Amino acid sequence: MSGIPVLLVAGTHGNEMNAPWLINQWAKNPDLINNHDVRFSTVIGNPSALKACRRYLDRDLNRSFSADLLGDPLNADHEVVRARELVSLYGPQGVHPHQIVIDLHSTTSSMGSSLVVYGRRPTDLAFASLIQSRLGLPVYLHEGDKEQKGFLVEAWPCGLVIEVGPVPQAVIQDSIVQRTRLALSACFEEIAKVNSGQPLFPDELVVHLHLGSLDFPRDVKGQLQACIHQDLQGKDWYPLNYGDPLFVRGNGDIIRFDGDYQPIPVFINEAAYAEKKISMSLTKREVWTVSMEWQLALNDLVDI
Amino acid sequence: MSGIPVLLVAGTHGNEMNAPWLINQWAKNPDLINNHDVRFSTVIGNPSALKACRRYLDRDLNRSFSADLLGDPLNADHEVVRARELVSLYGPQGVHPHQIVIDLHSTTSSMGSSLVVYGRRPTDLAFASLIQSRLGLPVYLHEGDKEQKGFLVEAWPCGLVIEVGPVPQAVIQDSIVQRTRLALSACFEEIAKVNSGQPLFPDELVVHLHLGSLDFPRDVKGQLQACIHQDLQGKDWYPLNYGDPLFVRGNGDIIRFDGDYQPIPVFINEAAYAEKKISMSLTKREVWTVSMEWQLALNDLVDI
Repeated sequence: MSGIPVLLVAGTHGNEMNAPWLINQWAKNPDLINNHDVRFSTVIGNPSALKACRRYLDRDLNRSFSADLLGDPLNADHEVVRARELVSLYGPQGVHPHQIVIDLHSTTSSMGSSLVVYGRRPTDLAFASLIQSRLGLPVYLHEGDKEQKGFLVEAWPCGLVIEVGPVPQAVIQDSIVQRTRLALSACFEEIAKVNSGQPLFPDELVVHLHLGSLDFPRDVKGQLQACIHQDLQGKDWYPLNYGDPLFVRGNGDIIRFDGDYQPIPVFINEAAYAEKKISMSLTKREVWTVSMEWQLALNDLVDI
Repeated sequence: MSGIPVLLVAGTHGNEMNAPWLINQWAKNPDLINNHDVRFSTVIGNPSALKACRRYLDRDLNRSFSADLLGDPLNADHEVVRARELVSLYGPQGVHPHQIVIDLHSTTSSMGSSLVVYGRRPTDLAFASLIQSRLGLPVYLHEGDKEQKGFLVEAWPCGLVIEVGPVPQAVIQDSIVQRTRLALSACFEEIAKVNSGQPLFPDELVVHLHLGSLDFPRDVKGQLQACIHQDLQGKDWYPLNYGDPLFVRGNGDIIRFDGDYQPIPVFINEAAYAEKKISMSLTKREVWTVSMEWQLALNDLVDI
């Protein structure tokens, strides 16, 4: 077997149970997902956190892959140690080298199924365009955020996050499992086409560019002063217009969007993000041409 | 001011954020809830767990009020110590005595707003009948379960849980906050009527009697072998019929309900209950006459 070796990571966050459940069931029922002869490995990102049913023990594993953390010998946080281990075992120069990584997540936000890519690496954009062309999933392109960095997929030459919601933390819902399975199946089928030299790239990729994040209104002690307004809850991917409600205070006062543009919010009220001071992220929708450079970059990963 | 003193507890579980948020906003905006001159105190059940955004630190606080735990001098679990503290501060013989307790909870299950009472104490049934008559909320009557005991409200002469869902753990949703507020407002208004000797009891109380709980199918190691079937997810309060799907295995096999009765499931796929080996609880709907004994029992609490 040849072609790009793919690493599937589930349970990077220990209270996102659906992908680990899927991977576990797949191990018992090999017919559950057709790998189309693509070489792959599966790994639980943070087994200790999964066992404890917590997002992480010391720090967010999916913010622990920055070069400074990986290279800091004094940092012995559980997740930093685990990040080093994952890279040394499964990284592009690891014991078992992999060139593509797919990191399976879930969210409490009503985002449906989506893809998250980090930065503008040609390989990622080419891969995302194949999946989007196949399933129509929206792509959230996260970049230029000094507060949020060190994502897992950045430690591999190509990779993306499959994000499925809404689902509460610590809950397995069959509909979420099935949507994860569908996205993963499409990934295998598209990678198989890349391996055989016959990928069918679309002309365009629709991306939602990260513009920034909004914190909740807080008092001087950092306590929340308002929560997400009912009208905004569940409205991920819908453009915000001037005057739309964002937050509501305890006394009923409404805080409204007062921008003169129409950003598209994502990760509205994600449970894990309040501590990161994120009530939602704002994006801008753009349509990009799928360039030959992207296609060649992805192709270069075959039989590397 | 006279009448029954009422204790309101929010944050008994530290990752159920909506009631603590409401209580906090109410403290800042006294007009938010009309207490109808009812005497009351508010308290955060488990402040340390709330700060950590975890259900509990050592053990479930809402299973820590049994006589054997409260009286065991060797048990120093955080929640057992806290249970003793709450009883000694706010219990019926406490420093600040309260006769009624209302314990505010949320659930990831799609149960809407409901009341939970424990056992068949006349005071609880009388109080629940007033709230049900007012708002139409279903009552889940939990009893006879050796595995689940030591509930907070049982340490007071009268008390019930207000349970609102669905909402993920660790998320504040305004719709959940508002429904909690509505139920709480009704409680105050009805207690005020009891205080003034003019409660309007309904003729009947509809209860959902706890019959037992179903665990998830598990293997010999205790690992889940199946998850809740899509058709059952979100169907709390809908009767189960013979042949209805309950669980689905990874290979697609469906495990169906094979009973010859029609139980009504509640707490389907509640995030916190998998560790308690509960995938759902089954109940039986009954219509009870609101007896004079219940009414007198509640009335006896006035100016006790």
